Amino acid sequence: MEKIITLTTDFGLTDEYVGVMKGVILARAPGAKIIDLTHGISYQDIRQAAYVIHSACGYFPAGTIHIIVVDPWVGSSRRIVLLSFKGQLFLAPDNGVLTLLLQQKELDAAYEVTCEELYLKPVSHTFHGRDIFSPVAAALINGMTPEDVGPSIDPNKLTVLTLPIVEVNQARGKIKGSVVRIDHFGNLMTNIHRDTCHELFSEDEKDSVLVVIKGQIIHGLQSSYSSVGTGSLLAIFSSRDYLEIALNLGNASEQLNANIGEEVTISFDKPILSLYKGTV
Amino acid sequence: MEKIITLTTDFGLTDEYVGVMKGVILARAPGAKIIDLTHGISYQDIRQAAYVIHSACGYFPAGTIHIIVVDPWVGSSRRIVLLSFKGQLFLAPDNGVLTLLLQQKELDAAYEVTCEELYLKPVSHTFHGRDIFSPVAAALINGMTPEDVGPSIDPNKLTVLTLPIVEVNQARGKIKGSVVRIDHFGNLMTNIHRDTCHELFSEDEKDSVLVVIKGQIIHGLQSSYSSVGTGSLLAIFSSRDYLEIALNLGNASEQLNANIGEEVTISFDKPILSLYKGTV
Amino acid sequence: MEKIITLTTDFGLTDEYVGVMKGVILARAPGAKIIDLTHGISYQDIRQAAYVIHSACGYFPAGTIHIIVVDPWVGSSRRIVLLSFKGQLFLAPDNGVLTLLLQQKELDAAYEVTCEELYLKPVSHTFHGRDIFSPVAAALINGMTPEDVGPSIDPNKLTVLTLPIVEVNQARGKIKGSVVRIDHFGNLMTNIHRDTCHELFSEDEKDSVLVVIKGQIIHGLQSSYSSVGTGSLLAIFSSRDYLEIALNLGNASEQLNANIGEEVTISFDKPILSLYKGTV
Repeated sequence: MEKIITLTTDFGLTDEYVGVMKGVILARAPGAKIIDLTHGISYQDIRQAAYVIHSACGYFPAGTIHIIVVDPWVGSSRRIVLLSFKGQLFLAPDNGVLTLLLQQKELDAAYEVTCEELYLKPVSHTFHGRDIFSPVAAALINGMTPEDVGPSIDPNKLTVLTLPIVEVNQARGKIKGSVVRIDHFGNLMTNIHRDTCHELFSEDEKDSVLVVIKGQIIHGLQSSYSSVGTGSLLAIFSSRDYLEIALNLGNASEQLNANIGEEVTISFDKPILSLYKGTV
Repeated sequence: MEKIITLTTDFGLTDEYVGVMKGVILARAPGAKIIDLTHGISYQDIRQAAYVIHSACGYFPAGTIHIIVVDPWVGSSRRIVLLSFKGQLFLAPDNGVLTLLLQQKELDAAYEVTCEELYLKPVSHTFHGRDIFSPVAAALINGMTPEDVGPSIDPNKLTVLTLPIVEVNQARGKIKGSVVRIDHFGNLMTNIHRDTCHELFSEDEKDSVLVVIKGQIIHGLQSSYSSVGTGSLLAIFSSRDYLEIALNLGNASEQLNANIGEEVTISFDKPILSLYKGTV
Repeated sequence: MEKIITLTTDFGLTDEYVGVMKGVILARAPGAKIIDLTHGISYQDIRQAAYVIHSACGYFPAGTIHIIVVDPWVGSSRRIVLLSFKGQLFLAPDNGVLTLLLQQKELDAAYEVTCEELYLKPVSHTFHGRDIFSPVAAALINGMTPEDVGPSIDPNKLTVLTLPIVEVNQARGKIKGSVVRIDHFGNLMTNIHRDTCHELFSEDEKDSVLVVIKGQIIHGLQSSYSSVGTGSLLAIFSSRDYLEIALNLGNASEQLNANIGEEVTISFDKPILSLYKGTV
């Protein structure tokens, strides 16, 4: 069976860089199936890449090798690492891009990539995607075991980013988070997970919540974009189960002039009756 | 033989959405060959997608499955349909995106997609490309018959867009149409087909026609862009046999400040002599 | 083994043009592996395409077929040619896009493409990528020999671009070149090769050179971007061994307001001591 390699970079698509990586991979592993996750990560935006790879990897089959090259410190002494996670492999600079995976519990193992005999020679100091990541991924496709890329390292000691936190105030019925991604449609993705919301209210109670962003109050959570009128703001759980602010048939980011980092709160007042539930 | 799936969306390439669809497809149908038609359809522009899929599909082999996800009403009660046409399959929301195919005569059959057992669970209300379109296409690649996606429906009852019309005035030797697409090069694609023109004049007479757009008069139809001087406007039959307004080595759309919807006329005065042809 | 076809065009990714080419190829050569080098060549920028294909081709395996469609004179009498070079094939309009390959010594042979029986009929005058390049490449994938595309021609008589020159003044210890490409990161790629520099100074002496661009003096050549402080200018040999001006964690092109064509000089004064080296 053909094995899959995915690519996530900030290389853009106007230069030949992505094509060159594919050439190097296919010259060594002709049967590899190479899938672009995106090459549109903003310039050296490690955090954005961290969200992308975390959002996407679960939809790929076991055995997939994910290459992430958002690598501001290429050519310096930063390590290149291979992380094994839920039957997939992640090849990336050790710069925090794997942060959201490292928060999970199913970490198998991690390795520092030191198998220099595989690298393209001479190794440049500016394009490790070509000289290191691609030939190592090709070797893994060809059957090299993760152990052979280099010494085992403690996954808990890999570099992690400080990500914006979510505060839950159960007493006041309020969760405070922030916008962490804005997609192509201008939808505002927050870091507030559906499970966190369920600490405050159940799915049945979602019509009664209030979501606030930039002083705008949004009543209730919708089930689809078109549950509200054209051009109306809405809150919804995204396809990844995070609270999302959108505009039906429009661009919420532009409408609200909201950027990454914008504070978002969701609050829920239990009906008076329920306060007495235990005592009645 | 590997089967082809094409993708046409308005997802753009900066998010992981397209990559995720490919992951879902390949996890189920590892041998699928996935080709991007474009992910640059303007935001929810169903009409543009309708032109794209109609222009492209004829160049793919029989058995190709085309997925079109330009889907403003995702998550609402709009249907998802499978259209069988000239030995290919088209999987799309029933929102008009198949309009130009539905104008043809070779329609085989259409089905409403209801095979929920194939969907990714839980089905989101915002990303059916991932949860419905991809797994259903993968199942078709794997040999499921179109009949198995759901109940047969009448292709003539699918949603169609009202497209700009072309008026032919044979008495006055004039055809009136409009710009329906503008390509990456700024070429203005009209809805006036070569066959419609041939109702007025023959291929040999094309030097004598006048094309008018935004008050500019263009004399004759050319055979190639470089038949006129650098920076000159020209009219030509496009590679799809529609009347196209272009600028040799330049951008006609910018030069004319012409947008989609712009009126275009083509007229032909038969030489006086020919009026007497039958009587001399 | 699957054979690779690469595509380099100025078609962009918003229209279906690239997808259509892939459809035509796969309809005829279902096993072809099609890799996009880039479709982001600037509008009809033959020179940029020449640099891209020259930079990328060496990373692909023998047998790869490269299609380059940057073709301002499509439909005119310009020839389409097939160049055989180092075990790979290059299919392109004869407009200079192969210039940098033609400067090499390993040219095998060239052919004018005239195998009309393979073309898509009727051949349009505006989209030879679809009607000629794609079916011919597919036939080559399927085993047609280069000789069968048409008559042999002298590779030394193909069209070449006049590229900006590099002047070496050994007496004054100075090399003058220019910026020939700017990449997605704003890195300024010059035409001054590492080997040319070594006519003036050795790798060990690179700390002592001066690079000047737009009046800015850059001291020494670095080994990696992060060898200088954040936001500092640096000079470095690129991953393709040409002198490159970059900004650590920033965009050199924007910072310097430098465009293609900008003059770059690199100079080296041998330390006084070395002048006496032979005599001491």
